[in-house]
Amino acid sequence: MKLLEERIFQSGKFLPGGVIKVDSFLNHQMDIHLLEKIGSEFFKIFSGEDVTKILTIEASGIGIACLAALYFDVPVVFAKKSEAKNMSDSVYASEVHSFTRGKDFTVRVDKNYIRSDDRILVIDDFLASGKAVLGLKDIVDQAGAEIVGVGICIEKAFQPGGKMIRDMGINLHSLAIVGIDDDGNYYFKEQD
Amino acid sequence: MKLLEERIFQSGKFLPGGVIKVDSFLNHQMDIHLLEKIGSEFFKIFSGEDVTKILTIEASGIGIACLAALYFDVPVVFAKKSEAKNMSDSVYASEVHSFTRGKDFTVRVDKNYIRSDDRILVIDDFLASGKAVLGLKDIVDQAGAEIVGVGICIEKAFQPGGKMIRDMGINLHSLAIVGIDDDGNYYFKEQD
Repeated sequence: MKLLEERIFQSGKFLPGGVIKVDSFLNHQMDIHLLEKIGSEFFKIFSGEDVTKILTIEASGIGIACLAALYFDVPVVFAKKSEAKNMSDSVYASEVHSFTRGKDFTVRVDKNYIRSDDRILVIDDFLASGKAVLGLKDIVDQAGAEIVGVGICIEKAFQPGGKMIRDMGINLHSLAIVGIDDDGNYYFKEQD
Repeated sequence: MKLLEERIFQSGKFLPGGVIKVDSFLNHQMDIHLLEKIGSEFFKIFSGEDVTKILTIEASGIGIACLAALYFDVPVVFAKKSEAKNMSDSVYASEVHSFTRGKDFTVRVDKNYIRSDDRILVIDDFLASGKAVLGLKDIVDQAGAEIVGVGICIEKAFQPGGKMIRDMGINLHSLAIVGIDDDGNYYFKEQD
C-alpha cells in the first residue's frame, strides 16, 4: 500500500534493534484518515472471504480493526492481555511472547465471542516474530472456528513471523513489508 | 442516549459489587454500528468545543474514540498503561487506580502528541471512581493543554467520579448514567 509506505518513510523512525517507530500516526497517536484507508484496503483484499468477525489484540490493533470493521460490517473482538475482574471465567487463553515488551503474557478471549462457525479476520499493526498471530490462531482453533485471513499493517521481513505464517498456509497480507539490505538500510519489499 | 440504555438493559449484566458487564457489545466484543452512533452522539454534544484531539486510555476506550474521531476529524491519542521498548523517554506520566483491575498503574503519553494549544476531548467507556479521568487531566495539565470535554459511555452514579469531575468544573457528559435505588435495583438517571 503506497500511501502507508510513504507515511512510514516520511514520519516513521527506524531505531537500532529493528524497532520501527510509527507512533506519530499508527499506534499511539492515530491518524484516523490513514486508518480509514487501511481499513478500506483490507476490505479490498479480504472482502471475498465472508468474514464474520475481526479479531485483534489489545491495544494497538483495536483502532485499525474498528475502522476496518466499518467496511466489513462485522463486530470486532479484541484479545485481552491481563486478567480483569469483569471478565468471565470461561475464556480461551494462549501464551504470547511480545517483542516490544520483552516478556510473555497471556491473551484471553471470552468463549461467547468466538463461535465454531465464525470466519475470522485477524488484524494487527505489526508482524515480527509472529507470536501474536500464533496466539490468536490457537484461540480460534480452540473455538473450532477458522482464520480466513490475517491483515497486517507493517511486516518486518527481517524477522521470521511472515515466512512462518505463510508456510502454515494462512492467508496473510501485509500492507507494508520492511526489509533490511546488506548495508543495514531499510527498504520496502513487494508482497509475493 | 436511549439506544445505549436499551442495549445495556437488553445485553448488559449487572453483577455483585457494582460491576456492569457490557463486554458483549462495548468493551471486548464491539458492535461497530453502536460505536458509530455513540461517536455521532459525542459529536452532537461536543462539536462546538473546537476539539483538536481525542484522548483516551488503553484498551477499552480506543475503539469508541476512533469512531468518534471520524466525526470530529481529529487524531486520537491513547494513553499507554505499560512501559514498552518502542516508547520515547520523553513522556507525560500519571498514576491511576483501576477499579476493574484492583491495582495502581502508570499511564503515559509521549510529549510530542499533546501540545499546549490542543483542545482535548477525553473519551472512555466507563466512569466510576473518576481516577482514569483525573490521570488524563494530570497529563493534559502537564502539557499546558486544555480539556474541553469528557465524554463517557456509562457512568456509575453510585460511585463518586461523576460528582467529583463535575465539581471540578469539567464539561462531562455521560450517555448512560446508572444508579442503584434503595432496594438494590439498577435504573438509568437523567443527566442534569
